[in-house]
Amino acid sequence: MPSPLRNGDTPLPAEAGGPLHRHQGRHFLSSISEHKVRRLIALILLLRLAAFCFSLSAAIFMSTNSSRSPASPSWLRFHPFRFVFAANGIVAVYSLFEMGASIWEILKGATLLPESLQLWFDFSHDQVFAYILLSAEAAGLTEARGKACVWAAERESGGFCVQSYISVGLGFAGFAFLALSTLLSAFRVASYIITGSSFHF
Amino acid sequence: MPSPLRNGDTPLPAEAGGPLHRHQGRHFLSSISEHKVRRLIALILLLRLAAFCFSLSAAIFMSTNSSRSPASPSWLRFHPFRFVFAANGIVAVYSLFEMGASIWEILKGATLLPESLQLWFDFSHDQVFAYILLSAEAAGLTEARGKACVWAAERESGGFCVQSYISVGLGFAGFAFLALSTLLSAFRVASYIITGSSFHF
Repeated sequence: MPSPLRNGDTPLPAEAGGPLHRHQGRHFLSSISEHKVRRLIALILLLRLAAFCFSLSAAIFMSTNSSRSPASPSWLRFHPFRFVFAANGIVAVYSLFEMGASIWEILKGATLLPESLQLWFDFSHDQVFAYILLSAEAAGLTEARGKACVWAAERESGGFCVQSYISVGLGFAGFAFLALSTLLSAFRVASYIITGSSFHF
Repeated sequence: MPSPLRNGDTPLPAEAGGPLHRHQGRHFLSSISEHKVRRLIALILLLRLAAFCFSLSAAIFMSTNSSRSPASPSWLRFHPFRFVFAANGIVAVYSLFEMGASIWEILKGATLLPESLQLWFDFSHDQVFAYILLSAEAAGLTEARGKACVWAAERESGGFCVQSYISVGLGFAGFAFLALSTLLSAFRVASYIITGSSFHF
């Protein structure tokens, strides 16, 4: 984390008060900063937990969705629903990994991968998976509103239609939390870029 | 732009060399920074121009799409296609406005709105419109692959199907450029937050 270093570099109000005061001032600022960094990581962890829960349940809801008549092969016949299942599954696995990385960071005080790699990894995957998940949900919603519910109504299995909607809705909630954690990881990368080198602009 | 100020605050290698050297050093660094800021704004302008062209042509392609048989009321009967048209239209108008704001910034050396407002406005709208445009394109693609092309094939108007695909493809290209400019505007906001106040973390 570049922040404690940078706060350490800032001239302090207590600086004129001799070595003892100066040391106390630095320690005080550094602990505020540590506290804020921990709070940020805890917030990211919370967002990832929410994204994990919603995307896992969306994947489960979609994969257990089938109509009552045994002749029809359930959700697998609708390609956008496969996309919904795959995207939610990927996001669930990724969120689980990222939760592990966040817990590691809270416990050990350092990132799992080397810091710059970890920050770029988090941000790029957050951003790309958020886009993938959103397009999957939009495609799934269109399919549910279009072909899938008509098909289900013809077979008198309204439950299939409802369960598709629930799965897509849960996926949208997962996307919302993933998008929020993208904001935080983007801020962390930018902060690393800006305060890590002195000749930024 | 917070960068010239911040570079001006950095201790310089020439600082020990008296007032004249110090002033030259500051001027040198400040002009490097100005140059980089201008290049960043020009890059954003280019991305916005590309997003504008693609989303405008996507909206035009979609709105002029109709099947050959006069009985069928063209693209308007497919709700996802209305969404594609609306999203591309909004992004085209927004990109045009943002191009104007970028040109203003290059010419006048200051943002159109007050700086913090402008940066937050750019970033939030970029992010939200990118999500809207992506979900519109995903919905449009699902509709084209699903109902629309089946409907068009039944009426022997394959051109309707092809033109839908082209519109959606152009929209995806517009999204790609909007997503890239989101990265840059996110970096600008983060840079403003971090270097604009001294007690960030």
